[in-house]
Amino acid sequence: MNVKGKHYRTVWMKDSSVFFIDQNHLPFDFKIHESKKYNDTCRAIKEMSIRGAGAIGAAAGFAMAQGFLSSAFRYKSKHESDHHHKYIDEVKQHINKTRPTAQNLFYATDRVYKAAIKAENHGKAAFIEAQKIADEDAEACRKIGEHGNKLIYKDSFNIETHCNAGWLAFVDYGTALSPIYAAHRDGKKVFVYVGETRPRNQGAKLTAWELENEGVPHTIMVDSAGAYLMSKKKVDMMIVGADRIAGNGDVVNKIGTLEKAIVAKEYGVPFYVAAPTSTIDLNCASGYDVLIEERDTDEVLYQKGFDNWHQKKVLVAAPKSTAINPGFDVTPSKYITGIITEKGIVKPNRDFIKELFLSE
Amino acid sequence: MNVKGKHYRTVWMKDSSVFFIDQNHLPFDFKIHESKKYNDTCRAIKEMSIRGAGAIGAAAGFAMAQGFLSSAFRYKSKHESDHHHKYIDEVKQHINKTRPTAQNLFYATDRVYKAAIKAENHGKAAFIEAQKIADEDAEACRKIGEHGNKLIYKDSFNIETHCNAGWLAFVDYGTALSPIYAAHRDGKKVFVYVGETRPRNQGAKLTAWELENEGVPHTIMVDSAGAYLMSKKKVDMMIVGADRIAGNGDVVNKIGTLEKAIVAKEYGVPFYVAAPTSTIDLNCASGYDVLIEERDTDEVLYQKGFDNWHQKKVLVAAPKSTAINPGFDVTPSKYITGIITEKGIVKPNRDFIKELFLSE
Repeated sequence: MNVKGKHYRTVWMKDSSVFFIDQNHLPFDFKIHESKKYNDTCRAIKEMSIRGAGAIGAAAGFAMAQGFLSSAFRYKSKHESDHHHKYIDEVKQHINKTRPTAQNLFYATDRVYKAAIKAENHGKAAFIEAQKIADEDAEACRKIGEHGNKLIYKDSFNIETHCNAGWLAFVDYGTALSPIYAAHRDGKKVFVYVGETRPRNQGAKLTAWELENEGVPHTIMVDSAGAYLMSKKKVDMMIVGADRIAGNGDVVNKIGTLEKAIVAKEYGVPFYVAAPTSTIDLNCASGYDVLIEERDTDEVLYQKGFDNWHQKKVLVAAPKSTAINPGFDVTPSKYITGIITEKGIVKPNRDFIKELFLSE
Repeated sequence: MNVKGKHYRTVWMKDSSVFFIDQNHLPFDFKIHESKKYNDTCRAIKEMSIRGAGAIGAAAGFAMAQGFLSSAFRYKSKHESDHHHKYIDEVKQHINKTRPTAQNLFYATDRVYKAAIKAENHGKAAFIEAQKIADEDAEACRKIGEHGNKLIYKDSFNIETHCNAGWLAFVDYGTALSPIYAAHRDGKKVFVYVGETRPRNQGAKLTAWELENEGVPHTIMVDSAGAYLMSKKKVDMMIVGADRIAGNGDVVNKIGTLEKAIVAKEYGVPFYVAAPTSTIDLNCASGYDVLIEERDTDEVLYQKGFDNWHQKKVLVAAPKSTAINPGFDVTPSKYITGIITEKGIVKPNRDFIKELFLSE
C-alpha cells in the first residue's frame, strides 16, 4: 500500500536482508529498518516493530530464510552437516519464541523449514518459500478486499472500524480495511469512523495513519461514541478483523469488538468480520474455549504519545488505583452478519465455515 | 467525603473566602485553593478547577455572596445604593458567563440574588442562602445514597460505573457513587469497575481517586471492556449520573452512556441513573430535543497525564487525522431500569416522573 505516494509492503526481503516498516515509530515517524541477520528480525518481532498476524508470519518466514542463508555461508562443506542442522534448529526455536502465541509464526517457520531442509540449495529454497508465504498473505488480503467491496453498495457509505486490521497488520492490503481500499480505488465515496481502540490506540495511531496515506476520508472517535453515531444513523456498516475464528463462527478479536457488535445489532447495522481462512480454527469448537490473555495493566494506566519530538508515557489514572486489561473478547456468531474471507463471504455458522475448507 | 482520612466538601465558604479542591490538579495533587474575591471564584469555575453540576451551583451561590459582601464593604452609605445595584448586577452577569450551559449556575445566582437584594443585611442574607444551596445539594446526594443502597441486596456486589458522578461533581456524597459509599459504610462488600471514560478520563482520574480515598475496592478498565465483563457475569448493576433527564425519562449523560446501557440490557444487568430531581427538565419532552455539544477535538487527539512531576499533553493519534468529540449522548428510557433521586427510585416514564414533582 501507499505511504506518501510510494508503494510499500510491511515487510520484505532482498538478498539476505529483511526490511520492514518500524511500527513502534508510527504514526509519528516513518522509518524503514534493515535487519541483516535473523536475530535482528527476531528482535523486531519481539519488540513489536513488526506486529499483526500476517506481518509476523511473513517476517518469521523471512527470518527462517536468513537462518538458512547464514548457515550455508558458515558450514560450506558436506561434513559440517551436523553443525548446520543444529544451527537451523536453534534458529527455528529462537524465532518461535519471539511471540509464543502467534499461530502464523509457527506455521511460517515450519513451512520454510520443510521446504528448505531437503532441497539442493537450502538458502534459495528457503527464500522462495518465505517469499511465497508473504505473497499468499498479500493475495488473500487483496481478495478479501475484492469480496468485501461488493458490500459497499451505495455512494457516501459510512463504515466504522475498531483497532487496526489494515495492511500494517499484514503484508499488504489488510483485512478489515481492504474492502475500504478496494472501494476507494473504484472511486466509490467511503468515509471511515475510526474507533481509537484503547488501551494501545491502534485505531487512532495506525488505522488513521493508513487511511491518511491512502487518501481515504476518515475521522477518529473515542471507542464508546459508536452507539451515539449509530443512533444518529451515521454508520452503514461495521468491519473489524479477527485474531481467531472458532469453528462455529464465534470471533476472538481486540477488546471492545463484542461491545461494538451488540450495539450494531441493536441498530440493525451490518457487522462484518474480515479475515483470511487461515484465521479460522476448526479445532476450536466455540469462542468460549479460547483463553483471554490478560495484558500488562500499564497499558491502561499509562498512555504513550508524542510530545516535543519524543514518544512519552504519561500516567492517565489515579496513582494508587489498579486496572484490568483483557486483551481480547469473544463475539458470539449471533451478532455477526458475515465473515469476509479470500474465498468469499460466509454466514458465521459451522456448516458454511466447513464448506469454505471443502472448496479448497 | 474523605481525603486521606479527613472530611472535605468540594467547595465551602468561610468569612468572605471561598475554599475549594482544585480538580485540575487531581488525581496527582490534592490542593485546597482559597479565593478571596468573587472573580477568583469565577475563574475557578471557568477553568474547571470546580466542575460538576452540584459543585458549580454551590460555587456560583458562594461567589454571589462574595459579591454582596464586597459591595456592602464598598458602598456603605444609603445614597450609594445605585452603585451597589449596578455592581451586584455586574457580579451576577460575570458569574453567569463562566459556564453558560450550566443550569445550576443560573439557579444559584438567581436564588442568592433574590434572597439578598431585599434583606436588611445583604451580605449576611446572601451567605445564608448560598450556604443553604450547598447544604441542600449535599443532603439530596446523601438521600440518593440511602435509596440506592437498597438496591445493593447481596454481599460481593459488583457495580460498573462510567465517568465521575461522585462527590467531586457535587458538594458531597455524589450521585452515582453515593449508593456505593452508603453500602460501603454499612459494611456491605461492594466492588466497582470504573470505566476510564475517554476522552477526559474522569473515571480513571476522579472516580478511582474518590474510591481509593474512601477505601472502596475498585479497578479501572478501558471503556469498551464493559461487554466482556458482563458476558462473564461479573457485573451485578450499573449506575451512572446524568447531565439532564427529559420529562419522558430519557437521559443525557457523558458520551458512552448509551453504549453501556444497550450492552447492560443485552445481558440483563440492571442499569440505574442517579441524579437529584433538579436534573429533571419537565420542559424537555424527550432526550432528542437536547442539542449535543461537540467539544474540542484535542481532547480525543491528545491525552493529558502525569510524567516526571508535571502534567503533560501527548499526541495519541496520527498527526494529520481529525477527530469528532460529541460530549454527551442520549440514552432512551427503554434501556434504563430506574432513576434514583433524593425522593426515591422511579421508573423512567412520564407519569412516574411527574408524580415525583407532585409529591413536593
